[in-house]
Amino acid sequence: MNKLTILGTNSALPTSERFSSAQVLQLFERYFLIDCAEGTQMRLRQANIAFAKINTIFISHLHSDHFLGIFGVLSTFSMLGRKHALSIYAPAGLEEILTSPQAHYLVGELQFKLNFHTLPNEDFAQIYDDKKMSVYAIHLNHRIDTWGFYFTEKPSINVKKEAIAQYNLSLDEIIAVKNGNDIHRSTGETIPNTELRATDKPLLSYAYISDTAFFPQIAHYIKGVRLLYHEATFLHNMLPRAIETFHTTARQAGEFARLAQAEQLLIGHFSARYKSTEELEKEAQEVFANTTATRDLGVYSLS
Amino acid sequence: MNKLTILGTNSALPTSERFSSAQVLQLFERYFLIDCAEGTQMRLRQANIAFAKINTIFISHLHSDHFLGIFGVLSTFSMLGRKHALSIYAPAGLEEILTSPQAHYLVGELQFKLNFHTLPNEDFAQIYDDKKMSVYAIHLNHRIDTWGFYFTEKPSINVKKEAIAQYNLSLDEIIAVKNGNDIHRSTGETIPNTELRATDKPLLSYAYISDTAFFPQIAHYIKGVRLLYHEATFLHNMLPRAIETFHTTARQAGEFARLAQAEQLLIGHFSARYKSTEELEKEAQEVFANTTATRDLGVYSLS
Repeated sequence: MNKLTILGTNSALPTSERFSSAQVLQLFERYFLIDCAEGTQMRLRQANIAFAKINTIFISHLHSDHFLGIFGVLSTFSMLGRKHALSIYAPAGLEEILTSPQAHYLVGELQFKLNFHTLPNEDFAQIYDDKKMSVYAIHLNHRIDTWGFYFTEKPSINVKKEAIAQYNLSLDEIIAVKNGNDIHRSTGETIPNTELRATDKPLLSYAYISDTAFFPQIAHYIKGVRLLYHEATFLHNMLPRAIETFHTTARQAGEFARLAQAEQLLIGHFSARYKSTEELEKEAQEVFANTTATRDLGVYSLS
Repeated sequence: MNKLTILGTNSALPTSERFSSAQVLQLFERYFLIDCAEGTQMRLRQANIAFAKINTIFISHLHSDHFLGIFGVLSTFSMLGRKHALSIYAPAGLEEILTSPQAHYLVGELQFKLNFHTLPNEDFAQIYDDKKMSVYAIHLNHRIDTWGFYFTEKPSINVKKEAIAQYNLSLDEIIAVKNGNDIHRSTGETIPNTELRATDKPLLSYAYISDTAFFPQIAHYIKGVRLLYHEATFLHNMLPRAIETFHTTARQAGEFARLAQAEQLLIGHFSARYKSTEELEKEAQEVFANTTATRDLGVYSLS
């Protein structure tokens, strides 16, 4: 099942109930850990997520509430006997820390390989690619270099069942159709691809946009995104504080979702000052109705 | 009130319910944070302990399950506006980490001073002293340099109420008695200190012994300790594993408490393999009856 598990919904200051930013995206059997605040390994256990399945970690930026948990995660992975490599997509500083003379204090002697990928200094760039999907990094607008992440399913062509029967397609021909080709038969007959392929189903996609000032300039990169997570640190009555700290208000998160023509909006990264997140949710919903304020250990399906 | 709040009871691997080692000792209005595993700041909030009151941190050793939480603690203290200095008693490596070129990633730009005190390379040495109490570091027997901590109230002399009336003691004379002196009056009369001082009440004391192999050689340093926390990572049927990893079994923790003539024993630092800690408690109780297996957020009074 494709789903997103939220491990922490707070901004800089964690509280009793709400930890700082971390989440796991499960997409096509892949487990992506996105940001990794203090307490991530405990939340992973609480969420019953198998540590060994996580092979890729994305870190948006190096403010402590987005990455301090990675040391505990890495040393625990190692203590549990992990031998297979782990890829880390992060700002350069994280590799600097993890290869510094002090790193052994932070993570012990790791028994597996870390593959570091430094996030690119571009507005929008592909950073990950496999058979089923791609990930893009989006440069955001925060106090330090910060990236959002856009996960998209790759288009794949399926063959109409009735066409297989009708044209008596061979296996090679079915593969040709899936590869987007027309069929040319020895009889001279040509069957166009468009006649054989099934109607495209909408592709799955997820965007993680945190931390950033309201940044409408990037909405077009993720146009039509199915599920959007956007930070909403403050209510809009604190706009001056949001501007000063390069964060977004709940209303602005709603506006961003509207501009991006998102299907569904999740908000998070809440200031510790809000005991309840209801007001934040309501405010975003006034602009973008299909909004949910996330909660720690909440699970949100992608379909 | 003098009390100990346990913030984490597990050894290396935290679980959903049990975090790794950290605790707060409140003694004579002082708040001492002892070890600081990942999640300490969240546990401090859950325990309702005022961050600003913590002025001293003791770190037993630099295995990640005993100190990774210090980065979150320090950066949160700073974000909450702390300006007053914080003392850290720890192995030298912690100062190395916190003054490394990468430290700003871990704690941001701290707005208060850190006073580092490197733990001494001696079997037993005083490391802290104030008007009311002292703290001693005890070198333990673990895989890396590790120290236990022994907190003791200083003896203080009180004056018998009835003696004040009987001898019509002046304020200066009361102070003289409290300082241990006899009273010499201009009349030539001498009143011996022993006749004026109240019977000494038993002094408060607390010892934190984690992590270590069973180490009876040090029991005499804390002889008669009122409250003893000792690690009990394994049940005694795992003694070979305890020896191999330089940890103590629950039965050995009980034996140590008996040797130290402790009044009360708390055990903790449990292996994640034990879903319940009941067996560990029972095993220690067979040797030392007044034993309690600690639980996360448990509060234990010192009196």
